Amino acid sequence: MSSPVIAIDAMGGDFGPRCIVPACISFLASHPAVTLILVGDPDVIQGHVDQFSFDDSRLRIHVATQAVDMAEKPSYALRNKPDSSMKVALGLVASGEADACVSAGNTGALMAFARQTLDTLPWIERPAIYTHLPVMGRQCVLVDLGANLDCSALNLYQFACLGAAAAKATGIHEPRVALLNVGVEPTKGNSVVQQASILLEKCRRLNYVGFIEANAVFRSEADVVVCDGFVGNVLLKGSEGLISMLFKQLEGAPVFLRLLAAPLLYRLRKEMMPARYNGAGFLGLRGLVIKSHGSADEFGFQRAIEQAVHAVELRLDTLIKANFLDLYEDSVPKCD
Amino acid sequence: MSSPVIAIDAMGGDFGPRCIVPACISFLASHPAVTLILVGDPDVIQGHVDQFSFDDSRLRIHVATQAVDMAEKPSYALRNKPDSSMKVALGLVASGEADACVSAGNTGALMAFARQTLDTLPWIERPAIYTHLPVMGRQCVLVDLGANLDCSALNLYQFACLGAAAAKATGIHEPRVALLNVGVEPTKGNSVVQQASILLEKCRRLNYVGFIEANAVFRSEADVVVCDGFVGNVLLKGSEGLISMLFKQLEGAPVFLRLLAAPLLYRLRKEMMPARYNGAGFLGLRGLVIKSHGSADEFGFQRAIEQAVHAVELRLDTLIKANFLDLYEDSVPKCD
Repeated sequence: MSSPVIAIDAMGGDFGPRCIVPACISFLASHPAVTLILVGDPDVIQGHVDQFSFDDSRLRIHVATQAVDMAEKPSYALRNKPDSSMKVALGLVASGEADACVSAGNTGALMAFARQTLDTLPWIERPAIYTHLPVMGRQCVLVDLGANLDCSALNLYQFACLGAAAAKATGIHEPRVALLNVGVEPTKGNSVVQQASILLEKCRRLNYVGFIEANAVFRSEADVVVCDGFVGNVLLKGSEGLISMLFKQLEGAPVFLRLLAAPLLYRLRKEMMPARYNGAGFLGLRGLVIKSHGSADEFGFQRAIEQAVHAVELRLDTLIKANFLDLYEDSVPKCD
Repeated sequence: MSSPVIAIDAMGGDFGPRCIVPACISFLASHPAVTLILVGDPDVIQGHVDQFSFDDSRLRIHVATQAVDMAEKPSYALRNKPDSSMKVALGLVASGEADACVSAGNTGALMAFARQTLDTLPWIERPAIYTHLPVMGRQCVLVDLGANLDCSALNLYQFACLGAAAAKATGIHEPRVALLNVGVEPTKGNSVVQQASILLEKCRRLNYVGFIEANAVFRSEADVVVCDGFVGNVLLKGSEGLISMLFKQLEGAPVFLRLLAAPLLYRLRKEMMPARYNGAGFLGLRGLVIKSHGSADEFGFQRAIEQAVHAVELRLDTLIKANFLDLYEDSVPKCD
């Protein structure tokens, strides 16, 4: 295949181009086969680019005259920001000029523009966001992470199929799919998870293992964990916050203790640091979109670009689509 | 004050009396001023008691002929289990024979029986469950943890006032109250958290600091974090699962690395191990009820009894009630 071309929303995120441009330049230096298209205000981007001396043959700047604010309502952005860096970057994927898009911008607006620009897979009511959460000895697909705060049972059912399709695409055979709940007994949970569980039990193509509690997620009792976007967002950010806190607390320990523990801490940091896992994928769209944390630093944003490149190399969108259709076609649920 | 008397639901939890009875006996040995009333099947309890030789003058057995199953629907338990160990233990608090009740049983049933037996504070629609989550350098009140899976804005508002009352009762002046959300911008979140935020902004007696993301909870950016019970349950159990996973992973590291790191790990374990924090309090009731994890071991169950004793010694129910009335009386929201 030809070398990956990634469209970057250069204006998004809490720090915008002053973080994203240096991250892109560092990324290009360590990834000689990748081309990046930085989308946004060309003067601002060029200003940041000029602070570095590097081979810029694989960095292109693409004009977009608007930017979506982090606090903007997605509906407002959709109506009023047709030439936003976010929308234009997604457009480059739709037109085939780029293989994937990375944005650290407003999640809701990114999802709204992505639906409009890239279209959804068959049957999909609402696309979702997923990531690979590091759990005991492996990784687990967690979906949704915040694109859909209020979900129907059918939404959760579709997220389960999409999540399973994504897990299969990364080589997991017959992924165990579970619904996140407050208990594992069938009487537990609200009416939405209970109905979703009934739908999932009927789907013979899916290896549905029932409800899972949040602690069991980290015991690696499922390969795909499904929940609404509010809950998934809290689980993901909570884990990240807790890990960061632990490292902060360890830094506060006496120096000699830290020195003794340094090799172990290094291992732990390497496996668990949230920034290493920055970058969440959109599921249910015709095209690859990676969402970076709004607060990602240069290191974190590079991890998000890395994910995009990896997804392009794996042809992840094609694989996920094929897996999803295979799972879903014979199991379209009959809902009221 | 007289010495604390704690009513124990001896039949509850995943392990029932075979875990709870030894936990109670160990607890009595280390707490010479406390009396425990073990409620449940007297033959079963006595059978476990007889396996130990100890001074049993501060252990009493109180008969209850039924037990609530962990998977039972609360409505079913409420109708069919009037003589359950759970209900009878709560009754001992209502009658003044015990100062507090501890149960590791079915959370929903415990809450339903507690409402029926102990009654709620004025205005309170639905009581909640809270705990003190260990966060950066301090602890933070997290409410609700699973008693109320679907909440209205008014429920969240009341949880905020109850949580603030609990924080004040443990000595925090002007506790910073925040609503857990997927972002801090006012446009973020679902309609319930948005409406709850509007109610909270109007409450002048409360130090409401706005939305908080789950990672910021661990950065100690609030003293009281309010959410619905589904989300709170996932945040709490997720943190516990992550911490347990980290310790498991560290156990898998080479021996010499672990030996070097042992002093630091000891500190960390002491501060963070979930079992140390077992025991969540009910808020909004006239009486002290502590819920232990269903899966708590002997050590964990003792921590729950310890919490109950501590709450009795602090007269926590009286303090929380006074603080709540003080916060709420002038700020009863006008809702549709």
